[in-house]
Amino acid sequence: MTDLTNSPAWQQLIKDFEKTRTQQMYDQFSTDPTRTEKFSLRAAELYLDYSKNRINNETLQHLVALAEAAHLPEHIENLFTGKAVNFTEQRAAWHTSLRDPTALQPEIHSTLQRMHLFCSALHSDHWRGYSGKPITDVVNLGIGGSDLGPRMVVDTLSALSNKKIKVHFVANVDGSELYNTLKNLNPETTLFIVASKTFTTVETLLNATTARTWLLNKVVERKKADAITHHFVAITVHADRAIKFGISADNIFSFSDWVGGRYSLWSAIGLPIMIAIGVDAFLQLLNGAHCMDQHFRNAPLAQNMPVILALLGIWYTNFYRCQTQAIIPYDQNLALFPNYLQQLDMESNGKSVNVNDEIIDYPTAPIIWGGVGTNGQHAFHQLLHQGQFLLPVDFIIALDNHHPWPEHHDLLYANCLAQSQALLQGRTQKQAYYELLAEGYDETKAKKLAPHKMLPGNRPSNTLVMKKLTPTTLGALIALYEHKVFTQGIIWQINSFDQYGVEVGKQLATSLSKALKEDMDMSAYDSSTQVLVNLFKKK
Amino acid sequence: MTDLTNSPAWQQLIKDFEKTRTQQMYDQFSTDPTRTEKFSLRAAELYLDYSKNRINNETLQHLVALAEAAHLPEHIENLFTGKAVNFTEQRAAWHTSLRDPTALQPEIHSTLQRMHLFCSALHSDHWRGYSGKPITDVVNLGIGGSDLGPRMVVDTLSALSNKKIKVHFVANVDGSELYNTLKNLNPETTLFIVASKTFTTVETLLNATTARTWLLNKVVERKKADAITHHFVAITVHADRAIKFGISADNIFSFSDWVGGRYSLWSAIGLPIMIAIGVDAFLQLLNGAHCMDQHFRNAPLAQNMPVILALLGIWYTNFYRCQTQAIIPYDQNLALFPNYLQQLDMESNGKSVNVNDEIIDYPTAPIIWGGVGTNGQHAFHQLLHQGQFLLPVDFIIALDNHHPWPEHHDLLYANCLAQSQALLQGRTQKQAYYELLAEGYDETKAKKLAPHKMLPGNRPSNTLVMKKLTPTTLGALIALYEHKVFTQGIIWQINSFDQYGVEVGKQLATSLSKALKEDMDMSAYDSSTQVLVNLFKKK
Repeated sequence: MTDLTNSPAWQQLIKDFEKTRTQQMYDQFSTDPTRTEKFSLRAAELYLDYSKNRINNETLQHLVALAEAAHLPEHIENLFTGKAVNFTEQRAAWHTSLRDPTALQPEIHSTLQRMHLFCSALHSDHWRGYSGKPITDVVNLGIGGSDLGPRMVVDTLSALSNKKIKVHFVANVDGSELYNTLKNLNPETTLFIVASKTFTTVETLLNATTARTWLLNKVVERKKADAITHHFVAITVHADRAIKFGISADNIFSFSDWVGGRYSLWSAIGLPIMIAIGVDAFLQLLNGAHCMDQHFRNAPLAQNMPVILALLGIWYTNFYRCQTQAIIPYDQNLALFPNYLQQLDMESNGKSVNVNDEIIDYPTAPIIWGGVGTNGQHAFHQLLHQGQFLLPVDFIIALDNHHPWPEHHDLLYANCLAQSQALLQGRTQKQAYYELLAEGYDETKAKKLAPHKMLPGNRPSNTLVMKKLTPTTLGALIALYEHKVFTQGIIWQINSFDQYGVEVGKQLATSLSKALKEDMDMSAYDSSTQVLVNLFKKK
Repeated sequence: MTDLTNSPAWQQLIKDFEKTRTQQMYDQFSTDPTRTEKFSLRAAELYLDYSKNRINNETLQHLVALAEAAHLPEHIENLFTGKAVNFTEQRAAWHTSLRDPTALQPEIHSTLQRMHLFCSALHSDHWRGYSGKPITDVVNLGIGGSDLGPRMVVDTLSALSNKKIKVHFVANVDGSELYNTLKNLNPETTLFIVASKTFTTVETLLNATTARTWLLNKVVERKKADAITHHFVAITVHADRAIKFGISADNIFSFSDWVGGRYSLWSAIGLPIMIAIGVDAFLQLLNGAHCMDQHFRNAPLAQNMPVILALLGIWYTNFYRCQTQAIIPYDQNLALFPNYLQQLDMESNGKSVNVNDEIIDYPTAPIIWGGVGTNGQHAFHQLLHQGQFLLPVDFIIALDNHHPWPEHHDLLYANCLAQSQALLQGRTQKQAYYELLAEGYDETKAKKLAPHKMLPGNRPSNTLVMKKLTPTTLGALIALYEHKVFTQGIIWQINSFDQYGVEVGKQLATSLSKALKEDMDMSAYDSSTQVLVNLFKKK
């Protein structure tokens, strides 16, 4: 047993679980009309209703006690003051300082200024392509943290998108993505952003190299260097490597080593966001996150939104043994949000070794999945309602929208509420039976069919409501989940900020890519890899 | 206990599980150099390597015995001969007959002919908008099965897309999707397809109504009826309802009631596919599926690709208690494939009641999730390698590609193989320790860090390889998973073809959408729903 599972707080929660696991939330609502008042919170323009969870006052207190036992407040201070919370790599994870307008460090401030100037030059056509034409398309070449955050934010806030310059994202080493993007673009008016913290990311560097060739193919010899200067910008910690690639030193935006990839959209990595939505909206995004930061840092644990989300997650992951968490925004604009959270959560907390370097004996990060409503209702909601697995759902919805058709939004909102209501209350066999009789079925058939129409209910969900999806509320929403993940990492005693799990695959890929091209002795490889390599060589 | 869990085949598998759960696949590869030869299969231009699974000959035999005990071959015959395999709704699920060129039923044949004529008219500009201009954009309005299949196929085969006519998809009741699509389109040159089996789907009908208004706003009164005739087409089983909506009887394509939504892309619902990729490619898609159908119907169970995939899934779901299955295509074109499989699998088998109308005591459909490689390597693969949950992965890759850059494809292929290899072999603490020493760490630091760099390995995956992603191989791939899901449903003794779980949410949404607009007595509602309704009303 580890410290954690052996702790009084944990042991208490095991007892709570045994005591309450068969309790029906619906009964709790009936006996306590103030349940939602108690189990809801406001912070940074977000409203969280967490009353449809399998908890009671006591369990909630014990969950908060677990956070206290983990000295969460101290760890929060360490996060906010730039201590080395990334304990294996011995560095800070100080993304909160990127969005604190009251205490911007000089180099963060100057990078923001340079980003601003660059965007203004682009938008005002002062920055032009090598042949003198204004830039019409920006292609961000990056992967993981250098792609998912900016891509999600730009897509989510597309209502604010600059009309003149279109921002594209290419991540995959699969050439199809770059090919399909470039086939409609003109090299004379296309600007590339090469975004890579280390400037060694294989996918990004290959995409950048192919993009450079695509550009230079159309440029006469004497203009080639000039073309790169006008069409390539880099965002990296390692300016030297970007310069070696051919990018002008003036075109390099940098950030600190303590900015983790999956926490980097707030840094220079956010440049494509600023290009798409403008500098003011980008600052609002930072400000929304900062509001959530202040809440997280200052609110008592029991009224702290990220902490509550984190504790509920732990309750389901570690006690109910749920392996997944669904994220279901009822908002087409948030279509990429579940993907974004996949990285944030699973790369941060998909770990098995604790701060004492011990292999742990309890589950950590769940599998994050989901998709937008109402679409999911016609796809995977069947399993949510009648499947065999319990899993918590986060519904996200805005009261207002970005289009002129209120009847669409009314229905969207009604459906969102109806889903959590259906998950809560289900439908008994008896109800199904009587509904079938009312539909005209005879008793035998109704009795036979009723079990198939039964929904067990008592399935948990949170509902997050915002007035409108704006840069500010989106910033707060992202920061909410960042801090949720941080809190869980602290309680699980793992390092949320490294990602050593992905190293082996990278090493193996390097040697396999040689094996695909050269004659190599493959006898040390497993037969599966041998066969698959041979299939490729024989094609 | 149900029949299934009580059966000798099931009980034998419990014993196998206990006996083999700690076996290392890597050892099995070492002791048996023919492992991949044994545990691999070819069918319908697909190659399946399933050797990196936690199985041995014996377990595999016992899994096949489970399928035999379920009388799978009889059920397959029932599926292919149009018997009422959908036993709660008493109808066939005869999608295989839609793609059998040797036995096309007259009405299927004539629908295909009409689809062909319609596409020819569009592509040759014989079909024109109300003002005489050729159609440039087609918008498919449908949701669930009337959206996911066509959307995925059109996106996957975008290399074949018609250059003149662009096909768009709008599913969500959230008006943002329709709004963002229409804002760039011209009513004079836009054609709408309203795809709804029942022609009562709330989302689709509202989108169609809004689209009709958008169109008619620009049309003078005396031309309005004419405009609808030139710009609206329906695909439905209920032509009467489409006519009532205003769509000309000549513009209605129909299909049989026994075509289930999530199996409907092969029917008239595939019209947007045919428009996008042309009639020949659509027929190749059908033919690819038909090849897999023949394999599924004729191959012995132990050499039957969908059956093997199904049995492996059951092995992990029911014995290892994995709650999820990851789908990771190393192919940017297959980006929507995991979403498509979410519906296919989770809506089909997310059930809890068996053919004897009993509530079952074993897990059914897993949660399907995933995303394309290499992107996932920089997002969620951390959890695959070092997370706490065992979960099976299907990797999908093509030997060839659709772009002119071989170095991209080499790296893509190498990375795909490297991931399954890393999942298989992991990295021991000792290996990590020596690697750290080699990197220059001192012994104390290396010892401390090594556990964090350890990967347990022994994590299972399938690799599906095809020569190239074409309509034929895509058809086979989809049919492969359809039959996998069917096989699992048969063994789990559930009905894969109904979806009663989604009814309650629909009913509740109807009454909630009234509550949002009118003053209603909400006292019978739980406080959460009351509060959330009030938030909306007060906005």
